[in-house]
Formats: sequence, structure tokens, C-alpha cells
Amino acid sequence: MTRAFYIGRFQPYHNGHQYVLEQIAETADAIVIGVGSAQLSHETENPFTAGERILMITGSLKHIRIPIYVIPIEDIKRNALWVAHVRSMVPPFDIIYSSNPLVMRLFAEESIPVLSPAMYERELHSGTEIRRRILKGEDWEKLVPDAVARVISEIGGVERIRQIARNDCDLNDRPVDRCL
Amino acid sequence: MTRAFYIGRFQPYHNGHQYVLEQIAETADAIVIGVGSAQLSHETENPFTAGERILMITGSLKHIRIPIYVIPIEDIKRNALWVAHVRSMVPPFDIIYSSNPLVMRLFAEESIPVLSPAMYERELHSGTEIRRRILKGEDWEKLVPDAVARVISEIGGVERIRQIARNDCDLNDRPVDRCL
Amino acid sequence: MTRAFYIGRFQPYHNGHQYVLEQIAETADAIVIGVGSAQLSHETENPFTAGERILMITGSLKHIRIPIYVIPIEDIKRNALWVAHVRSMVPPFDIIYSSNPLVMRLFAEESIPVLSPAMYERELHSGTEIRRRILKGEDWEKLVPDAVARVISEIGGVERIRQIARNDCDLNDRPVDRCL
Amino acid sequence: MTRAFYIGRFQPYHNGHQYVLEQIAETADAIVIGVGSAQLSHETENPFTAGERILMITGSLKHIRIPIYVIPIEDIKRNALWVAHVRSMVPPFDIIYSSNPLVMRLFAEESIPVLSPAMYERELHSGTEIRRRILKGEDWEKLVPDAVARVISEIGGVERIRQIARNDCDLNDRPVDRCL
Amino acid sequence: MTRAFYIGRFQPYHNGHQYVLEQIAETADAIVIGVGSAQLSHETENPFTAGERILMITGSLKHIRIPIYVIPIEDIKRNALWVAHVRSMVPPFDIIYSSNPLVMRLFAEESIPVLSPAMYERELHSGTEIRRRILKGEDWEKLVPDAVARVISEIGGVERIRQIARNDCDLNDRPVDRCL
Amino acid sequence: MTRAFYIGRFQPYHNGHQYVLEQIAETADAIVIGVGSAQLSHETENPFTAGERILMITGSLKHIRIPIYVIPIEDIKRNALWVAHVRSMVPPFDIIYSSNPLVMRLFAEESIPVLSPAMYERELHSGTEIRRRILKGEDWEKLVPDAVARVISEIGGVERIRQIARNDCDLNDRPVDRCL
Repeated sequence: MTRAFYIGRFQPYHNGHQYVLEQIAETADAIVIGVGSAQLSHETENPFTAGERILMITGSLKHIRIPIYVIPIEDIKRNALWVAHVRSMVPPFDIIYSSNPLVMRLFAEESIPVLSPAMYERELHSGTEIRRRILKGEDWEKLVPDAVARVISEIGGVERIRQIARNDCDLNDRPVDRCL
Repeated sequence: MTRAFYIGRFQPYHNGHQYVLEQIAETADAIVIGVGSAQLSHETENPFTAGERILMITGSLKHIRIPIYVIPIEDIKRNALWVAHVRSMVPPFDIIYSSNPLVMRLFAEESIPVLSPAMYERELHSGTEIRRRILKGEDWEKLVPDAVARVISEIGGVERIRQIARNDCDLNDRPVDRCL
Repeated sequence: MTRAFYIGRFQPYHNGHQYVLEQIAETADAIVIGVGSAQLSHETENPFTAGERILMITGSLKHIRIPIYVIPIEDIKRNALWVAHVRSMVPPFDIIYSSNPLVMRLFAEESIPVLSPAMYERELHSGTEIRRRILKGEDWEKLVPDAVARVISEIGGVERIRQIARNDCDLNDRPVDRCL
Repeated sequence: MTRAFYIGRFQPYHNGHQYVLEQIAETADAIVIGVGSAQLSHETENPFTAGERILMITGSLKHIRIPIYVIPIEDIKRNALWVAHVRSMVPPFDIIYSSNPLVMRLFAEESIPVLSPAMYERELHSGTEIRRRILKGEDWEKLVPDAVARVISEIGGVERIRQIARNDCDLNDRPVDRCL
Repeated sequence: MTRAFYIGRFQPYHNGHQYVLEQIAETADAIVIGVGSAQLSHETENPFTAGERILMITGSLKHIRIPIYVIPIEDIKRNALWVAHVRSMVPPFDIIYSSNPLVMRLFAEESIPVLSPAMYERELHSGTEIRRRILKGEDWEKLVPDAVARVISEIGGVERIRQIARNDCDLNDRPVDRCL
Repeated sequence: MTRAFYIGRFQPYHNGHQYVLEQIAETADAIVIGVGSAQLSHETENPFTAGERILMITGSLKHIRIPIYVIPIEDIKRNALWVAHVRSMVPPFDIIYSSNPLVMRLFAEESIPVLSPAMYERELHSGTEIRRRILKGEDWEKLVPDAVARVISEIGGVERIRQIARNDCDLNDRPVDRCL
């Protein structure tokens, strides 16, 4: 019985994530998905709440037949504690799938096996590119599962991203407190 | 389509929780379960990690046929922000089931409908009573779903509760930092 | 030109506070009032928000002719930093009025002059006693300025205190996170 | 009876703020002014403490005849909680005046009415421009109310801004901890 | 080469600690001493700052000929992260000496070897007893190394403990914020 | 008897620090060394843990004959509290050596004497330059004391810096939470 762990910010969840998770589902017996920077929302780089992202993910993975746990992970901002933080919040797992070098390093230092999944047209399937397209009014729906487009539509996500972007904060990825 | 919200500490999850959730499952289309004080573990009143509690809950609700979201909620320690905190972490919900007067008050002040579920032999089915029985070596397994007893056994939960209790901290529910 | 500092939790503001501040107003040129534990509300010992307490205080001191600054102070929970924390949040002051030995000690260690004001029927005029009376339905309005009774009535404060008290949390002064 | 809310960082308070507040004072019955990023000071972008900024604001608004509440607001760094945070710290208000798109969005999502005030020579009347002029020794006093120039002079604010700017930190708006 | 770890609150450091550390010094090549709850001071249970406690410890261990590291450890309040927190703050160690069951449990769960040192007249040599004696004016100096008595005298520690104790806070071990 | 204070991030400790501390050791009776941003590690700008940095410093100063205290200081991120924070964590000191204008300002505002030490080939002896050389495979060992090169080798520091740098985070000095 193998439980696999996969983590991302999912701002928003897209076909690149979907491709990786469908691959993992073929070999693992259960998947734990961590939703990172869970406490952030309504920022240019982090427009959606953890709850909204959970909805996107579970809606997109209904066809997967193994147990899937989707767990928000708040930032701890201390790399030396991050693995312990993640492990305390989610069910025990045996392997982590990641292609992020820092994530790989931190888990490897704790002797947890790491695999790097094959990725799918990475330039195109990135949160940054999708948020840019939403902002500019370019085509983005085909880069995400249908369930994601539906959630974004229901919560007024397109309008939210555009209004946030009008903020004249020097650095766009700051919370409102720092942009007054 | 009605999504219901239910929150507890689930230290551990027991038949009283199970009874309420099975009731809710008969009327709601989806259930969101918040796992409170998610950041706490290895304390007399909070022996299990959020991940362990999520495992207990999902293991006990496999027979429920509607979507169930089990979400850890870290403490925010500011009652005036608590409802906004909870709502940002979980998928949108329409109603909350709670018999905790403070929870009821806080949601009511935000104009969210609250229902109080019928409870099942409450004195017996309480986390406090079950932790006491585990500590004293009395019979406790019949008060929890089988899946919970299995998780507690696998993680060495009985031994953990007993070792924690040997701590001579003045107030038992403190983290280790305050018990040195 | 002397600016005086006075701090309390004001849960709620009462005639004892009023008596002390009217005394201070006779000698100082301006008064800075710190509203402590500003982040707490909806707890048995801390039922009112900082905003509600500010309203009580300013409403009660309208007849004072010197400038009055009412400033919420969030907890910092580190006594060695508390004086620096308070001083950074409020306009500069020359003297502090307090009869709290710990407050007196902390300011004295920073070489700031402390005076202990005469108090007015202290047993009766205490937040604890007034909250107890509100809870039990005993007479409490005469212990507070009219403006305070008005604010408490407008925000449904009596009902809030009673509903919070029905919580069966072991220790009543905990936030909701710890009472699930 | 209408209470209006207005928020800024006021680093420092200037004629642009003054212009907006004098407008608001003509229609509202009371004004609540939030002093954002209250916990920051001695940084290039945030040179003044909350207490110093409160002094600037109250000194500049002495001629306004309606009640004015000047309230420091510490950062919460979570946009989804920010409105609840602000509301817990200040007296209840009916309307918010803001031209910041993110502030407007967050209040609008909570169904609180937002108005955008006319602004006064915005390029010139900005904290960034005034801090730049103070740093470079250019004329800045005419951009702020007299009371502000007086406070800055009394606290040695010009010298403070210049000494802070000599710091060779990569990003100037970091606290000292990150600039060692 | 064996580096041993020992942790306590040291409020104050006393002959019981000294006895244990002198034992450890006979077998280890270096000792790392963690000063817990480092951020607390000026409380009934935690009267001394981390800096003052470091002075007590190093002053008492001058005769030890192996390297000694005395490191303040701030509270993290999450037992599942505590071992990672401690390990990130101190030089690497091979073994921990502790007789605290919770500390033993948390390190054992991370597969770090734990030894329980023999203790010396434990009832008498406890911080609680020594603070009680200081407060009551009973003999306490003989329970601590000379260097500790000297530090306590230099910083006015006896007077500090007595003044703090006059506080009429319901629970004595709260910070000043909660005792206003 | 003069105790001097010196603070840095020491990422890593190098010959520039060593030069300054050897100078200070000639006039002071004891030295307190603060290790700033103690909670950070495994970041491009902050690769080493506090414990690793303490090991580098004490290993390099074995030949100094006066007492040396090496104390980790966690970030507080509020400049107005920083001096009080530092002072609570370390033994009392009489003078601070610093050439950082913000550090100088903050201590000067608290009336603590500040001296600026002569520095040694500053362009070359900087943490930024040394981290750059480690990353690029250029010669760096001669810029640090032997003990530092030894610690970096033992903990696999070269490999850690290179792996961290492969992260494709927009801003390299973010913790892992923000780089998912």
C-alpha cells in the first residue's frame, strides 16, 4: 500500500497538474495533495482561497478511483521546519512527487524518497501563464480541466483577478496591508 | 445543492461524531468537515496530529455516498476573525451543524444558518472520556468506529497518550515548550 | 505640556475607569488611553471587540476638554518587549498612571515615571463583577457611564455574554479554536 | 447618523489625505481613520511609528467639528481576513472611502458600500514623493499640513529617513532583521 | 566525538541542573544547553530573561573543560515541530539527556537517543521551590551555584520576583497583556 | 568590565567578521555575538541553520581568551521592538559594534553607544560574494577561517547551495512555502 504526496499552490489548478496526478494515480494506492500558501488569496500571484482551490482539484479528479486527500497547508516560512509541518498536517505518505529543487532537497535531507514526475508542456501549463491570460482576456479555459473553469466562473474569478491587478502596489504579490 | 459544515477537534473521532455525520449525510449533498486545532498534537487534550485525525475520519466515512471534504483548520485565536478564517480554508457551505454555543454565536453574527444536531449518548461519547479510558486501560474501542481503533493502534496512540500523561507539567494541556 | 498614559482591557469600561480618568484630566494636558488585548472578543473574560470598547470610552469622555487618544493595543505576549510595543503604537507620553504591579515594574525598568491613581470602590467597579452581573441578570447599569450601557444595548452585548457563557469549555477564557 | 471609514499608511500624512478627509467631513457624522501597517517603522517606505502618525493626523484635523477616531491597524497578511480584522479594531462604520482597487474589492466582497473620493494632485501628494524629497533635501513642507512638518521636526524625522536610507540592504523596505 | 543536548527553562539555574551537567561533562565531548521559553520573562513562573539565564549558566560552568554552547530556544507551541525547531537552532548533537516524558517521547519519535540522568534531591532543587523561597524571604542561595546568586543580586531579581507576585492576575503565569 | 555586542547573519561567517572580532577582543572583556535571522536556512541568501552558523563561529574563535557568547536571534520584523528583542535574548552589554546604518540608528535611539569597526577588504569579504563563489565553483575557502570551510564541508553545504539555487522561484530569497 503506497500513499503518494504531491504539493503545489494551484493558482489555479491546471492540465499540467492533472497530467501528473493521473500518472501518479496509476501506481499509488492513495494520493495526498497539499495546497500550499493556503492562507493567501486575493493577491496577483495568489488570487484564489484554499477552499476555492480544493473545489477545483476535487472537481477535476472525480474519475480517479483511489482515495484522494486534498489538504490546505499554511505557510510556516522556516525551511528547516517545513517538512515536519507538512507531515503533521497530512496522512502519512511513503513517497513525494516533486520537480521543485528546494522541495526535493528538504525532503531528501529527511530521508524521504522523492520522484520527479514527467511534466506536460510546462511553459504553457503554468499558473503564471494562466493568470496572465485571464488578465489579458486571452484564451485560458483550454489549459485547465472543465471543473476549474466552472469554479472560476462561479466565484467571479476573472473579474477578481482583473480588479486585483489594477492595484498600484510597487510589488504586486503583497497582501493588502502592505499596499495601502 | 446543499453543502453542510461540521467542525470538531476529533481527539479522537468517535461514535458521537459518526452519528451526527450520518444524520447530516441524509439531507445534505456534500459535507465539509473542519479538523480544529490542527496544529496541536502530542498533548494530553490533543494527542493526535491533524493528519492522523483526517485518516480516522475518512476511514470511518467510506460508506457515505456524497462528497466529503476533511480540512485541517489551524487556530487563529481571535474570535472576531474565526468565521472568516474557516470560510477561507474550506469550500463554500450553506449551513453549519453545531451544538457549541460560541460557534453558533459567531456564525449567527455573520448571518450564516446554524442547526443543532441531535447528539448520541453525549456523556459517554466525548473525547475527554475516551482519552481518560485509553489512559486508564479501560474499554474504549467500542466508543469509536473500527477505522479509528485501527489508526490509533497503527500509530502507537495508546502508548503515546500514556507517555504524555506522565509529564509533570502543572497544566496538562500545554505544549512542550511550556513544560520544560 | 504633559501627556499621560492609562491602559486597561475595559471589558467593559466602567465608573472606576471614569473616576481615574477624570482625575488625570485635571492635571494632564492630554491623555492617551491604551485598549489592551485589543485582538480578543467574544470570550467570557473579553466579550467586546476593540472597536466596541473604543466607542464606550469616547462616548463617556465627551465632556473632557483636553485631547484624548484611544488606541487599541494587541497582545505581544513578551513582557520584555511590551513597553517598546506600547510606545510604538501611541503618541509619546510623559507619565503612566497604573496600579497594576507588573505594569508598574515594566515601565519602571525603562525609567518611565509611574503614578498610582486613587481608585473608586474597587471591588464593585471591576470588569469581572460587571460581567458577572450581566450574566446573572443583576443590576449593572449603574456601575458604568450611560454611554457604555447604550453601546452594550445597541450591539446586543447582554445576549452575547449570556450565549458565550453557555459554552462548556473547561477554561472559559479560551478562544473558540480551543473550545471545539 | 453616518460613520465613514478611511485607511492609509500615512508615511507621512499629507495634503492629499487632508483634502479627502475634509471632503468626507462635509457629509459624514463621524470619521474613523485606520493607520495601516501600524507595526512598521524605521524602514525606507515606513519611517514613522503608528504613534507618530496618529500625532500628525490628529494635529492636522483639529478644525474638524465631528468625532474622529484614529486607530492603528497592524498587518494581518491574509486578504481573506483583512476586512474582519479591520472591523474588529474600529467602531462600526457605514461606508468606506477608498481608491485602492484591492481595498475596494475586499470590502465589496463583504457587501460594504465603497466610495472613491476625488483626489488632489495625486502625483505630487504621495508618501513616496514626499519621502524622496526629504531624503534629497528638496522642498517637502508645503506638501503636508503644518502640524505634520512640526511632528517630523520634533522627532528628528528628516535625519531618521536619511540614516535609514544609507542602509545597503538589497531591498530597502525590509525590517532590520533581514538587513544584517 | 559525542555532543550531548540538555534543555530546561532554568528559572533559575540551580544545583540540580549543575549536578546533571557535571555528570554529562564526564562522558560527552561537548554539551549544548537549550534555554527554553527564551522569549518569556517578568512572569511569576518565568521571571528571568534568556540573557540573564545564559549569564547564570555560563557563570556556573566555568570549570568545565569541554566546549559548552548555551542557546536560547523560543517557544514554537507545536509539539510536532518542536524537535525540528530545536535542531535548527543548535549545533548538531548525538544524544539528549532528559527526564521529561514529553521531551523523551518527541525525540524518540524522531529516532534520537535519549538518556535520563540521575537527579539530585529533586523536590528541593526545583525552580518552583526556589522561586517560592525567594518570594517568601526564605533561604534559597544554597540551592543555586554562587554565580547564580550573584547574577540575581546584580539584576535586582529578588525585588523583581516580589513585585511581579503582587499582580492580581487570576492566573499568575500570564504575560502582562492578559493581566491588564 | 566591558561586554561588547556584535551582530550579523553570518551566511557564512568569514574573514571580515573574524578581523572585526579579533579587533574587538583586544579591548573588550567579553563579546556577545548575535546570529541574526536565526530561523532562516536553506534559502539562497540564508543557506545555513543557526546551529551550523554557531558551529562556524565558535570553531573560528577558539584562540580568543575572553568569554564569547554566540546567541541566535530570531527575526521580529518590527524595527521599533528590535533593540528590546535583542537585549532580552543576550547577556547585558555596554557597547555595540556595527557599521550598519539602521542598526546604528536603532541602538542610538535607545541611547546605547555604537562604534563602527574598521572593516577588512569589504567587497571581497561579504556573504553575498562567498555564496556566489560557492555556487559558481570559484575559489572561496581562502575568504573564510579554516573552521568554516570544515563545517561547510561536513554538512554538505556546497551541494546544498547549488541545489537551492536551481529553484525557479521568481524571488530567490523566499522560503519554500512561497516557491511551490
